[in-house]
Amino acid sequence: MSELSVNHLLGIKYLKKEDIKLIFKTADHFKEVINRPIKKVPSLRDITIANLFFENSTRTRLSFELAEKRLSADVINFSAASSSVKKGETLIDTVNNILSMKVDMVVMRHPNPGAGIFLSKHVKASIINAGDGAHEHPTQALLDSYSIKERLGGVKGKKVVIVGDILHSRVALSNIFALKLQGAEVKVCGPKTLIPKHIESLGVKVETDLRKALEWCDVANMLRVQNERMEISYFPSTREYTQQFGLNKKMLDSLNKEIVIMHPGPINRGVEITSDVADSENAIILDQVQNGVAVRMAVIYLLASKIKQ
Amino acid sequence: MSELSVNHLLGIKYLKKEDIKLIFKTADHFKEVINRPIKKVPSLRDITIANLFFENSTRTRLSFELAEKRLSADVINFSAASSSVKKGETLIDTVNNILSMKVDMVVMRHPNPGAGIFLSKHVKASIINAGDGAHEHPTQALLDSYSIKERLGGVKGKKVVIVGDILHSRVALSNIFALKLQGAEVKVCGPKTLIPKHIESLGVKVETDLRKALEWCDVANMLRVQNERMEISYFPSTREYTQQFGLNKKMLDSLNKEIVIMHPGPINRGVEITSDVADSENAIILDQVQNGVAVRMAVIYLLASKIKQ
Amino acid sequence: MSELSVNHLLGIKYLKKEDIKLIFKTADHFKEVINRPIKKVPSLRDITIANLFFENSTRTRLSFELAEKRLSADVINFSAASSSVKKGETLIDTVNNILSMKVDMVVMRHPNPGAGIFLSKHVKASIINAGDGAHEHPTQALLDSYSIKERLGGVKGKKVVIVGDILHSRVALSNIFALKLQGAEVKVCGPKTLIPKHIESLGVKVETDLRKALEWCDVANMLRVQNERMEISYFPSTREYTQQFGLNKKMLDSLNKEIVIMHPGPINRGVEITSDVADSENAIILDQVQNGVAVRMAVIYLLASKIKQ
Repeated sequence: MSELSVNHLLGIKYLKKEDIKLIFKTADHFKEVINRPIKKVPSLRDITIANLFFENSTRTRLSFELAEKRLSADVINFSAASSSVKKGETLIDTVNNILSMKVDMVVMRHPNPGAGIFLSKHVKASIINAGDGAHEHPTQALLDSYSIKERLGGVKGKKVVIVGDILHSRVALSNIFALKLQGAEVKVCGPKTLIPKHIESLGVKVETDLRKALEWCDVANMLRVQNERMEISYFPSTREYTQQFGLNKKMLDSLNKEIVIMHPGPINRGVEITSDVADSENAIILDQVQNGVAVRMAVIYLLASKIKQ
Repeated sequence: MSELSVNHLLGIKYLKKEDIKLIFKTADHFKEVINRPIKKVPSLRDITIANLFFENSTRTRLSFELAEKRLSADVINFSAASSSVKKGETLIDTVNNILSMKVDMVVMRHPNPGAGIFLSKHVKASIINAGDGAHEHPTQALLDSYSIKERLGGVKGKKVVIVGDILHSRVALSNIFALKLQGAEVKVCGPKTLIPKHIESLGVKVETDLRKALEWCDVANMLRVQNERMEISYFPSTREYTQQFGLNKKMLDSLNKEIVIMHPGPINRGVEITSDVADSENAIILDQVQNGVAVRMAVIYLLASKIKQ
Repeated sequence: MSELSVNHLLGIKYLKKEDIKLIFKTADHFKEVINRPIKKVPSLRDITIANLFFENSTRTRLSFELAEKRLSADVINFSAASSSVKKGETLIDTVNNILSMKVDMVVMRHPNPGAGIFLSKHVKASIINAGDGAHEHPTQALLDSYSIKERLGGVKGKKVVIVGDILHSRVALSNIFALKLQGAEVKVCGPKTLIPKHIESLGVKVETDLRKALEWCDVANMLRVQNERMEISYFPSTREYTQQFGLNKKMLDSLNKEIVIMHPGPINRGVEITSDVADSENAIILDQVQNGVAVRMAVIYLLASKIKQ
């Protein structure tokens, strides 16, 4: 397989196993590029990319922006704060306007689930979903799997537990799709009220005891407690969350094996994981960030090559 | 004529007919450039442009930024939100500071009418007015005329009606100047309270009946209802505005001819025009956006060539 | 000496006299570069710089951004408004995340004194302090000394008075360190409540009478009245400040010699200096701004060459 089966990256749900393989192979190349003194390739000098962020973001926006610049694409940035969206314009009109300025690709973060899918049916440009509400965040899941593969040699057969607010997490959903597609075993762990009712239909098991989950797994992906999303009524308090689902060094050391610790960031140190866990050899949190740029370069590069055909 | 008669683009009022011809001829070239795979020319590698937006803007700012990047100019962006203007600095000091950093050209949007004209008398840089209060928005009028010419073969002798809040619209005033200069016939149409008292002194006729205006015209430029500018007392309500001055498909089809529909964006679908009108073959709204980049490249290029002399 | 004695620019306090000489010699070269038609050099094509501004800034941010672009570095911008810092992430985590994306240098403005020093001990990147609370603003002091040298031929032996709120001013502290290091004589002048108790331990004299200070000095650096920092109780009112410490043309002309007037900007015209003073031949305020780009290019270039070793 030498090209993606899709024209957009809307969600992991729409990818085939071979797409992920191709993305990872391409990311291997770009990872080597960004470790050179000159971290750039001239590949996409003929591509203009618009980053449309209708929700605030730091790391994802910077990661995409660096990926685009290192591919030599032309980049324009658009954030909701200064946007016409406030003036009552529809999403399609906003995007069509931007595309009329000869933009080839749109990287979009949007608070509404499905915003990218909707857009892809109405506009002529390659769309990359950089997070759509509580739905999907496909490049995060790709960089997560890429980082697992890098540390453990592969994803197939690995046991991964995703810990936290599964209900509201686009990172969790995209990770479940990606891990299952690659043949990993997946459990989710968190407060019952924050686990979707029918999650097992995705081939995932539920474990409400963190210790049991950790004893089972090879990899624990500790989701961020999103105080801004979590409603008071869902769970008593952050302190009680930490008591039941927070990971500290003592618990990590008490396991009879080494497990890999992941976190999508930004970390609430002392809440979902303690500082000594975040900074331990088990953690691959900064590898995830570094791999994010290479994986995003790969996705952009592969989608761009479909535009050029 | 091989160069502009002006050193700044402060308003259409200060241009000669030949200036517009030269801008359009130059824009024809750049329109061809931005339809190439590599949409860039190295023309302005030696020019630094500062975009100073003291008012929020999406499309105009992006359009200028793309125009500048496609000319290979160095670009710095400055928006009011993070500016020293809040610290009590005068406009001249702010701009002189930026110019001291060796900036050659300033693209400025400002809430005060005449801000660009004032500035051009006090600083050493080429100024492009990207909208000054309710006064002028010259690049919008240029791209509007360019788009009429592209669709109808010319502007001279064409009948153009501008519909909406003429009183507060910089788009209306710049369009009137540009259309009259090129020999078009111009009517304005809208609520009496939103039409300036002495508008006829500009060689423009007033028509308060939308149907009559449409039956007369070749082109209808449907201005945006600016809820944020329109004071409650001026006009009963948006609903009543739409009833009297909104354009729908039924009315468009009932005319005994084809007319061209323009809109400066962002569109309030269902207010000044319905969706089926905005998306009809009559509408050249997205052409306007596309031509905006080429026209702005032309203006910047021509003003820059005067700096270099 | 062909390289800096430091790996970061955290404050003038950490520099040697020879570091300043080397920076100025390098800035001389870059000043010549930015006066060429093409104001760029390809020196830092292999360096990625992150500008992290946790406090609003216009002139310093633009000046650094231009300096970076004219060295052909890759630049990413990050401002507090859209940052994860609000999400409770620690400074070290934020910066480590950005560095994981292969960033070589960080230019940081932060409200907390010592933020850059703290960071330099915990992250692997070259740090430039672009202002840390009321502590230091080293590039401002360097461009100030560079501008004095340019106007008066040197800094050694010159008499410089810094006028204003010395207590809260990072510009004052960095200037004191820089001027003393280069052998200038320094006095500070301002309301007693705005002068630190032990300032004389820095080798500086206090003069509370502006006229006497001006009669003594070769250079007066008139600090900005920072209404946003100055607490009401410190000084009766801005009007009274101006009466005692504001400089007008009459006073300037009544001195029996020419003195050089500096101001770090943004100016409150009519408060710390009147307009005719700001625009007089004595003032080198816009030279300071222009030299800022060249001096920052020099600092970035010299620190980058240490990274590459």
